[in-house]
Amino acid sequence: MFEKLVESIDKYKKPLAFGIARVDLGQLNHDKVLQATYPVINWNENFGSAAVFIRSLIETGVEVDFEDSEFVAPVTKEFVDTALNYFGEELVAEAVGDKHKNIQVLKVLKDIFDEEEYDNYRICFIFEDTNPKSVESVYLKLYALSQRKVPLRSINLNGAFGVLHNCAWVGNVPIELDYLRANEIELKLKDAYPEVEYVDKFPRFLSHVIPDDNIRILDSSKVRFGAQLAPGTTVMPGASYINFNAGTEGPVMVEGRISSSAVVKEGADVGGGASILGVLSGTNGNPITIGRNTLLGANSVTGIPLGDGCIVDAGIAVLEGTKIWISEDEFEKIKEVNPEWNAEYKEYFKGLELAGLNGIHYRFDTTKGKMVAFRSRREVKLNEELH
Amino acid sequence: MFEKLVESIDKYKKPLAFGIARVDLGQLNHDKVLQATYPVINWNENFGSAAVFIRSLIETGVEVDFEDSEFVAPVTKEFVDTALNYFGEELVAEAVGDKHKNIQVLKVLKDIFDEEEYDNYRICFIFEDTNPKSVESVYLKLYALSQRKVPLRSINLNGAFGVLHNCAWVGNVPIELDYLRANEIELKLKDAYPEVEYVDKFPRFLSHVIPDDNIRILDSSKVRFGAQLAPGTTVMPGASYINFNAGTEGPVMVEGRISSSAVVKEGADVGGGASILGVLSGTNGNPITIGRNTLLGANSVTGIPLGDGCIVDAGIAVLEGTKIWISEDEFEKIKEVNPEWNAEYKEYFKGLELAGLNGIHYRFDTTKGKMVAFRSRREVKLNEELH
Amino acid sequence: MFEKLVESIDKYKKPLAFGIARVDLGQLNHDKVLQATYPVINWNENFGSAAVFIRSLIETGVEVDFEDSEFVAPVTKEFVDTALNYFGEELVAEAVGDKHKNIQVLKVLKDIFDEEEYDNYRICFIFEDTNPKSVESVYLKLYALSQRKVPLRSINLNGAFGVLHNCAWVGNVPIELDYLRANEIELKLKDAYPEVEYVDKFPRFLSHVIPDDNIRILDSSKVRFGAQLAPGTTVMPGASYINFNAGTEGPVMVEGRISSSAVVKEGADVGGGASILGVLSGTNGNPITIGRNTLLGANSVTGIPLGDGCIVDAGIAVLEGTKIWISEDEFEKIKEVNPEWNAEYKEYFKGLELAGLNGIHYRFDTTKGKMVAFRSRREVKLNEELH
Repeated sequence: MFEKLVESIDKYKKPLAFGIARVDLGQLNHDKVLQATYPVINWNENFGSAAVFIRSLIETGVEVDFEDSEFVAPVTKEFVDTALNYFGEELVAEAVGDKHKNIQVLKVLKDIFDEEEYDNYRICFIFEDTNPKSVESVYLKLYALSQRKVPLRSINLNGAFGVLHNCAWVGNVPIELDYLRANEIELKLKDAYPEVEYVDKFPRFLSHVIPDDNIRILDSSKVRFGAQLAPGTTVMPGASYINFNAGTEGPVMVEGRISSSAVVKEGADVGGGASILGVLSGTNGNPITIGRNTLLGANSVTGIPLGDGCIVDAGIAVLEGTKIWISEDEFEKIKEVNPEWNAEYKEYFKGLELAGLNGIHYRFDTTKGKMVAFRSRREVKLNEELH
Repeated sequence: MFEKLVESIDKYKKPLAFGIARVDLGQLNHDKVLQATYPVINWNENFGSAAVFIRSLIETGVEVDFEDSEFVAPVTKEFVDTALNYFGEELVAEAVGDKHKNIQVLKVLKDIFDEEEYDNYRICFIFEDTNPKSVESVYLKLYALSQRKVPLRSINLNGAFGVLHNCAWVGNVPIELDYLRANEIELKLKDAYPEVEYVDKFPRFLSHVIPDDNIRILDSSKVRFGAQLAPGTTVMPGASYINFNAGTEGPVMVEGRISSSAVVKEGADVGGGASILGVLSGTNGNPITIGRNTLLGANSVTGIPLGDGCIVDAGIAVLEGTKIWISEDEFEKIKEVNPEWNAEYKEYFKGLELAGLNGIHYRFDTTKGKMVAFRSRREVKLNEELH
Repeated sequence: MFEKLVESIDKYKKPLAFGIARVDLGQLNHDKVLQATYPVINWNENFGSAAVFIRSLIETGVEVDFEDSEFVAPVTKEFVDTALNYFGEELVAEAVGDKHKNIQVLKVLKDIFDEEEYDNYRICFIFEDTNPKSVESVYLKLYALSQRKVPLRSINLNGAFGVLHNCAWVGNVPIELDYLRANEIELKLKDAYPEVEYVDKFPRFLSHVIPDDNIRILDSSKVRFGAQLAPGTTVMPGASYINFNAGTEGPVMVEGRISSSAVVKEGADVGGGASILGVLSGTNGNPITIGRNTLLGANSVTGIPLGDGCIVDAGIAVLEGTKIWISEDEFEKIKEVNPEWNAEYKEYFKGLELAGLNGIHYRFDTTKGKMVAFRSRREVKLNEELH
């Protein structure tokens, strides 16, 4: 039966993504979804499970709209039973450990609903990667980013800020600010006012994602949900921060800020207090990538993309408009590791003109008062395909 | 009866501020007030309620001292009953939602005391804005600042550090360090040692204040109680911090430090890691104001007040003694947007000489090795009254 | 009997350090020690108690290995009873408050074991200060540092990172990441997923150490366990951080980063966002000491050791290779407060050549584009022994 259903997905629209979530609803406004917690997400995969879920929705009276870019429905006991039935006893029995995670979700829901049925579970399908329209689909996309199902900057999150609600977060639980207002007097006098840890539209990465064994995040406030951290990444608690849709693609030491849309490649080092500007803060909308093995010194500011094997000295700012002196000799050496760079020599280059180049050491010459660039001693592995 | 009492406030001294608080007492030293949590504060308002409260205190045997700058007394069941009686059934019935908040406080206390009477409620009056003398009056003032009842830098907090006790904070609860010491062995061996989140004399803003809907504070540790945040303010979790008696007067993006006594106006942007020096850290005691629409670049340091529409480039430091070069041409342009500035032209100005001027772009010229200032392209709205 | 035992320690090997800890074990892997919490540690002291402990272990069938650099054994009810018996009724009765803390530990354990015996208590001895081999001995050394039993940089922590396990920390409790993975679906759907505050191998200072009354730590994430804070130290929550085996030796205002192995002396001020480079981040392995009364300006970077009474201006970077101009006049003045400095005059000095010198003011001259050094106006108290 399951096999037939799997084939039947072709009758429906294949979802780009789907999953079942527990949602937190407003304390005052019970119709408001404040957060969606997914135990398992599916991104361009597991179409068999999608077929079972869609068929079970239809069979339990839900009209699934395949025309819209996304679809959200409540999860009912009837739906859970129907879907488990379609999967069949054998698969259900096998669904433990790393196997058949979508079925494991149903099994736990069956347990829960056998006790009492709740109204705070939802199933969400994304059919097209357009602007998200629901809290459930925003979260599904943030999961895809943070669980490394999709590359950074590859999916559409436009308008996410408008969809999410600003909440007071008490641990992993979002609370409506209006609820606190309505109950402030009683909560405070009865010593029951909650410990609000932050007020934001987004939750934190660690409230939803279990990092790889060799990832360290020394303070949960430093990584927003929707950020992506590759194995081997360490985020220190000083001045660091990684925004959503930003992060690392390999082992990186992060002691500075990786602003929205910025990406840092393997082996790079973001020094203490170093700032990588984001698309919302001074880069004219060009997202910044920091190349492999590149070092950003303590309290440096980087406003242009950097290639592999660069060094930005501590305390300096390399922005799009920064005028940087290069000697003829060093200009030639830089060309050697950037064969695709067709510039003519001139004394001063603007930061933007050096964007993305490999193997440059940026330094402020404290004897001449000039910002200078020269060939760094860091290794640069040239991309074979370019030669 | 209530009306008569309201008139009778003139017989007493009108309080500048008053409120009823639940206090946290020392775990070892039960006479020590560690924190005062006010569900409602009154600042130069609601004198009718003040009259009822004062009259009820007197009637229940409390000698109210009107000669001192402040007065604190325990709240008893008798006091609560007497005050509710003075307010009268009609007002008491009306006191729900946004109406008659002081009466709501009494109603909740009546509920509590009907079960059991507690000794950790206090009523506090401030008659004069002199140095605070009690934990209760310090907190009343911090509430006035953080709830935007008074402008920043407008009230007297001298000596507050001497009044408050240094505590270990577990959630919203202050714990005496001596209590932890006395019980360390038992708490640790029995797996009951509390999670201490910070050790300070001041609590955090979010432990006492419900921010406006469009305020975001991504990490509660970043805003001390006594700070003031205008609607539209966002405080990021990287390197930011807002101290008490400091904050914003309009929508501001805060990714840097607003030190004690610093004020940032609407539309300004405090870049990632930017430092605004405080009165305790290098400004010779002159508090700094950052004007409207002014941009402080990432990792910049600002040690002088800035007017509207200024830009401080990323990574530079503009201090009182910094020597800044201005061309004659730009000098004239700066004068245009600062008609009240009577300076004569010279090549180099010290930072302090440019304090408070509008429309200046501060930049470090990386070809000449000079700090320069010129007319920024940011809009400056000249104060009409000055023309 | 106790006296005899005390003498008998000479028969055994005197431990450098010892203590009894409650350990947190893995949720999945019950043999894995994730954390060791010591109510009391002994460092080169209390050899009488050591003798009792060793004797009691041997008597209860434990083979103590004195040949290895450290020894760890489970604490049993029998051990506790035996040890209490050796101490004798009189000492046991006296053991309250500040007296006989090791006996207090046994008394609390007796209480606990009288209810039920647990397998998560350990006794740990360190006989030699070599690379630690167990979680228990790493923690014992971190306690020694954080409780100021030993100076910073004085003990061997090589390999500690390899011994400790990376955990998800929920309050003071470490949780195996694998446990979260194995239970993610159920925890998330049943609304029981814990609030993970950080993921690291090390816990936080405040989870283990009660600071002195005049120490303030405004955010627990800012100080790693193994850091050392002298009385009078304040750690602000902006961009600050103190790593393990780093810290302060006197009253210091910390608003910046004190990286691993860096030490800051009394009266110094680490300005907002200031970075002191660590042995792992750009100092070629030379640990940095910041002298008494020295001021590091906001967003400055210091990559060399500094003597007493120095000033590093806000926003500048003084690194080993930074070229710094000194006038002949100022060179002489600097020599006056550094009589042991045998340098010959030259125009430019590298940062490393000025390492450790007293009374230098580092400034960037914004008119000439030069980094300059001159005699600071800060007081320098010359070390008497050098004259």
